[in-house]
Amino acid sequence: MRNIRLTVSYDGTAYHGFQRQPEFHGPTIQGNLESVWKKLVGEEITLNTAGRTDTGVHATGQVVNFLTTAPIPDEKLPKAFNSLLPRDIRILEAHTVAEEFHARYSACWKRYDYKIDNRPIADVFTRLYSLHEPIPLRVEKMKRAARLLEGKHNFKAFSSAGGVSKTFERNLYVCRIQEEGGILQITCIGDGFLYNMVRIIVGTLINVGKGWLQPEDIPDILQSMDRKRAGITARARGLTLSYVHYGEESPFDIYPEYLYSQKEH
Amino acid sequence: MRNIRLTVSYDGTAYHGFQRQPEFHGPTIQGNLESVWKKLVGEEITLNTAGRTDTGVHATGQVVNFLTTAPIPDEKLPKAFNSLLPRDIRILEAHTVAEEFHARYSACWKRYDYKIDNRPIADVFTRLYSLHEPIPLRVEKMKRAARLLEGKHNFKAFSSAGGVSKTFERNLYVCRIQEEGGILQITCIGDGFLYNMVRIIVGTLINVGKGWLQPEDIPDILQSMDRKRAGITARARGLTLSYVHYGEESPFDIYPEYLYSQKEH
Repeated sequence: MRNIRLTVSYDGTAYHGFQRQPEFHGPTIQGNLESVWKKLVGEEITLNTAGRTDTGVHATGQVVNFLTTAPIPDEKLPKAFNSLLPRDIRILEAHTVAEEFHARYSACWKRYDYKIDNRPIADVFTRLYSLHEPIPLRVEKMKRAARLLEGKHNFKAFSSAGGVSKTFERNLYVCRIQEEGGILQITCIGDGFLYNMVRIIVGTLINVGKGWLQPEDIPDILQSMDRKRAGITARARGLTLSYVHYGEESPFDIYPEYLYSQKEH
Repeated sequence: MRNIRLTVSYDGTAYHGFQRQPEFHGPTIQGNLESVWKKLVGEEITLNTAGRTDTGVHATGQVVNFLTTAPIPDEKLPKAFNSLLPRDIRILEAHTVAEEFHARYSACWKRYDYKIDNRPIADVFTRLYSLHEPIPLRVEKMKRAARLLEGKHNFKAFSSAGGVSKTFERNLYVCRIQEEGGILQITCIGDGFLYNMVRIIVGTLINVGKGWLQPEDIPDILQSMDRKRAGITARARGLTLSYVHYGEESPFDIYPEYLYSQKEH
């Protein structure tokens, strides 16, 4: 069997998340990809995906794979898919990979980015791709709090009930904030993410930005393993799955800009 | 009477243009602004607008004005409007101005920007705010053609039937193209614009970019005054009304970056 790996970008606004629903709740990314493949080659497939994004969450670098016998060459696949997909889903790349490649189980680490529009009046053009927070946030405090989340921790306090994970220890290599012109970008890179973990981290960092929490509270919240101690789950629309890495390189090989101040653990 | 001037930004995707329709064809920007004012103070108004944008056209600096007796202070108006407006329309500023101010007749010049996504695969997040043109355009030729449109000309060849203008001479102070990472931005600044003028200019420049026309053809097309000689009307989604200027300053006072190579006319 041929194993095809696709890199997918989508605007999640109109979708009921990535994962095909057992009953029809609304359109999904997976449902669209699978039904376009059916139209292209008449074959039923079930995609594996690197990360099941929730309703309203976006992606610039989602990865999926599926097995097929169809002979369409790799370089023709993006155009073939894109000609039938809705305009808010695009295939960026397609490669035939080793049969043992699995979009989820082979993933080594992932990068998510969360955008906050912290200007008094929300920009209409990015309203679906960022959270609008009109109260001026104390960004320097948020940056300090973010750094305290980096490293190997039990992130149970930062996960929603309903996840499938049985262990809560994850390595969050990078949790950094960049601010430019009132737009905050929170970057999280980790070896794995619990259910809603990035959105709860963002909700907690916003509480720090508002002065409701201090950066020094972060270690306590981690240790408590108590979901109620962390902030709310920030809205889906601000979140984007940016990149999934397969292979031995560390996040600091791929994003050396985060190396300068890497903490030791 | 008090005369209020508003600066308005909107994502035009969901609207049937700026202007309220005599019969209901779909929601409009004007309709929303007028009905929000009715809710706020119970008063029926008719807005004047700097430029009636078409269906799907956006604005970051649209200007409107209206007369009222309501005593709400200027600084409270944006929040009052924005609390009732849909999220794709935002009031950025509100000022009480002289009674003779008229958003349309007092305007001295306007700036429009048109975005083209010239990458092979369209970016999903800007798909509603740019035209996707996958064929690589010859940008240097387009830049030369754009410069040949600058100055005082009869722009009849670059206007659609259906406009209300009786004269076709306009001064296009600036027609420039910037390119970065496969995104082209075409900036047009002029003392007035004929119906669809910017979109026809863009359609014509795209023909130059594809090699179907040469920059040297531009003077002939202008002189012909023949709409059929120019390119098609480029899609509305790429167009944004960016700024309207009131007062004596020239475009080169406000945007000195365009001065360096201003042509003499």
